[in-house]
Amino acid sequence: MVQTNANDPRLKSWVSIPAGSDFPIQNLPFGIFLRKNSSPVAGVAIGADILDLAYLNTNGYFQGQHLPADIFIQPTLNEFLGLGRKKIREVRERVSELLRDSNDELDADARDAALVSAREVQMLLPVKVANYTDFYSSEEHATNVGSMFRDPKNALLPNWKHLPIGYHGRASSIVVTGTNITRPKGQIKPPDSDLPVFCPTRKLDFELEVAFVTCGETALGNAIHTADAEEYMAGLVLLNDWSARDIQQWEYVPLGPFLAKNFGTTISPWIVTMDALEPFRVKGPEQNPHVLPYLAYEGEKNFDILLEVLMQAGNAEPATVCRTNFKYMYWNVGQQLAHHTVNGCNIQVGDLYASGTISGPSPGSYGSLLELTWNGQKPLHLPDGAQRTFIEDHDTVIMRGYAEKNGVRIGFGECRGMIQPATHARS
Amino acid sequence: MVQTNANDPRLKSWVSIPAGSDFPIQNLPFGIFLRKNSSPVAGVAIGADILDLAYLNTNGYFQGQHLPADIFIQPTLNEFLGLGRKKIREVRERVSELLRDSNDELDADARDAALVSAREVQMLLPVKVANYTDFYSSEEHATNVGSMFRDPKNALLPNWKHLPIGYHGRASSIVVTGTNITRPKGQIKPPDSDLPVFCPTRKLDFELEVAFVTCGETALGNAIHTADAEEYMAGLVLLNDWSARDIQQWEYVPLGPFLAKNFGTTISPWIVTMDALEPFRVKGPEQNPHVLPYLAYEGEKNFDILLEVLMQAGNAEPATVCRTNFKYMYWNVGQQLAHHTVNGCNIQVGDLYASGTISGPSPGSYGSLLELTWNGQKPLHLPDGAQRTFIEDHDTVIMRGYAEKNGVRIGFGECRGMIQPATHARS
Repeated sequence: MVQTNANDPRLKSWVSIPAGSDFPIQNLPFGIFLRKNSSPVAGVAIGADILDLAYLNTNGYFQGQHLPADIFIQPTLNEFLGLGRKKIREVRERVSELLRDSNDELDADARDAALVSAREVQMLLPVKVANYTDFYSSEEHATNVGSMFRDPKNALLPNWKHLPIGYHGRASSIVVTGTNITRPKGQIKPPDSDLPVFCPTRKLDFELEVAFVTCGETALGNAIHTADAEEYMAGLVLLNDWSARDIQQWEYVPLGPFLAKNFGTTISPWIVTMDALEPFRVKGPEQNPHVLPYLAYEGEKNFDILLEVLMQAGNAEPATVCRTNFKYMYWNVGQQLAHHTVNGCNIQVGDLYASGTISGPSPGSYGSLLELTWNGQKPLHLPDGAQRTFIEDHDTVIMRGYAEKNGVRIGFGECRGMIQPATHARS
Repeated sequence: MVQTNANDPRLKSWVSIPAGSDFPIQNLPFGIFLRKNSSPVAGVAIGADILDLAYLNTNGYFQGQHLPADIFIQPTLNEFLGLGRKKIREVRERVSELLRDSNDELDADARDAALVSAREVQMLLPVKVANYTDFYSSEEHATNVGSMFRDPKNALLPNWKHLPIGYHGRASSIVVTGTNITRPKGQIKPPDSDLPVFCPTRKLDFELEVAFVTCGETALGNAIHTADAEEYMAGLVLLNDWSARDIQQWEYVPLGPFLAKNFGTTISPWIVTMDALEPFRVKGPEQNPHVLPYLAYEGEKNFDILLEVLMQAGNAEPATVCRTNFKYMYWNVGQQLAHHTVNGCNIQVGDLYASGTISGPSPGSYGSLLELTWNGQKPLHLPDGAQRTFIEDHDTVIMRGYAEKNGVRIGFGECRGMIQPATHARS
């Protein structure tokens, strides 16, 4: 992995970048957007605007890259991602060139045609998710959950420090930021009842996660080494793994979470490339006991990305309820992919692999309401006198994340969703 | 659901059907096949032959059906299935007409062009699996597992009779019959060791299952009622949920099976339509305690399908090791889909929903080696003096299934896989 020229903090763009923007010229994440009365195309976020990649490709600005003519005229990024990590890097570097203030390849008319205000378009799900896996890689989160539901002295299960625990999630119900989520109904077993009841969840929660998106595939039977794993990753997104704790509690033994999770999972709209995040590598936590050889790795494989969660009760002011960091992850993304494939499980382009809830060491850094309110025992105080143990109808949850260094912020945009009341049809 | 004319046991075809064939004119299942030096197309099994649907459509034999020109010239059936249950039924009925001995619409040349011997082609995976879910719906199987690993007196967990337990599996590693499976490596924790070791699984198993394939989709937030559920199902396939019991034992708490299952899942090549199975409906087991209203159903929702598993040690004779029946399922397919969507989880065309291991009441009817050998305590005796507790390298597992009544057999073909030794690269 080399630091590319496109990451140089001195770079400036001819696009004016609002202060504090997630999308300076050093970022250049990929997404899919929809203009009114048009078809979806691929774009790159720059400041408050989006650069239309379909326009650039159609008009010859990627001539050296030998891209298929329709590669950006697609409802998803899957075909583009399938070109692989190296090609994604080349396209990002070419976009960086075109956007530099010293570059005049795009004349005024071309700039006008290629740039669209982010406010005027709708962001779509950037990939058709081929396979979705959710890990459980934050030691603090696993410890908190173990302390609450088992024994605080033996909070971590015996396997936890030997392998990155994960499970398969539902790909169909992954949605893009801004999509409303309907409060799920399901079976819960109240503590005072012998029998389960069917009702809307009473313990609706968020889980703050970061996920990587793959840009390569393997054949069944092949494993990926930790040292090669990042070459299969296009970039990262924020992810909210909405969870119904009461449904989970009743259903999850012995095969794991199912209906408690698969009613909706929200991701942010921009794939922030691994290349853009290169300057933010940090060492991960020491792993003790030593991991088995197939999980060993060298170098700095964690990423220093600040994360926060805001909650908004109805139309009140949003309030920050959690501040944490992706760098706390015990298991890094390379270890996750190496573990996932060590048995020969094949990966596909457009797979999504989420971190699991990211909690930090202090109570204000816990990545779920379950932990923040300690299973409802300590309500959160929101503006206008609102209190929350779990999420109520018409609440909005907003996740944000960015890495920052030398005056450059590499941000993710928002991962936002509002909860709609449960439907009354068909109980 | 009406019994269609295409199911009439008196129907005969001009194609000669070998005795005991799975594919008489009353079956007509759909699959994807590949001729040498050609592209994949859709076909229907008839006796020892395959009817080329692409040929028929191109040459106007589906004129009344208004099918897209390329609907059968595809590497998967997904687009065809997406036309919905009614259209699938119409196509099957038209194929039935064309194949009847009284029908001469296909002249000798057309018959020659449209029919290909099943021996001369390769069967491909019939669908690109959009989402894969595996249930756990056999009471006998859940009871056996609970008796072995927990308490025989409380073998079933408290939730088991209230909801069809299920979990998400891996879609990418689903393969068609005949694909070799490499023995997976992974972490296991031997009972005499404090630490896990990394090695090829020592407890490789099969699980005999039946899965339904969907031909419809729902929007996120919508539930499917038990009474409507079968309209979303194109048909059934056999499924072998290969399992590494020692990997599973170490990894599965608290989030369920992961690497123990996702190294490969084999399905049979033909989607046997729900319409063809209509005559084989039977009542399911009585459900006590009563289920919640959203799981209630009326009518005969189980299917009388004989199932068997054969094991072949190297090149020895295959020997039957299990005979059971799909009718034993405690939770029927309609209940499974109703439960899966009751929280608003959306379904997609080409989803695969497997039953979980199908065990019957007697030891010879158990659907996994774990149960047949009672976790390795009672070895199976195979021909030529071979003994098995779990699957050894170069063993082949063959699953077969058929429904039979009034001299008509509606069969599935084979779900077959041979185990290759673990690879030595990269431990």
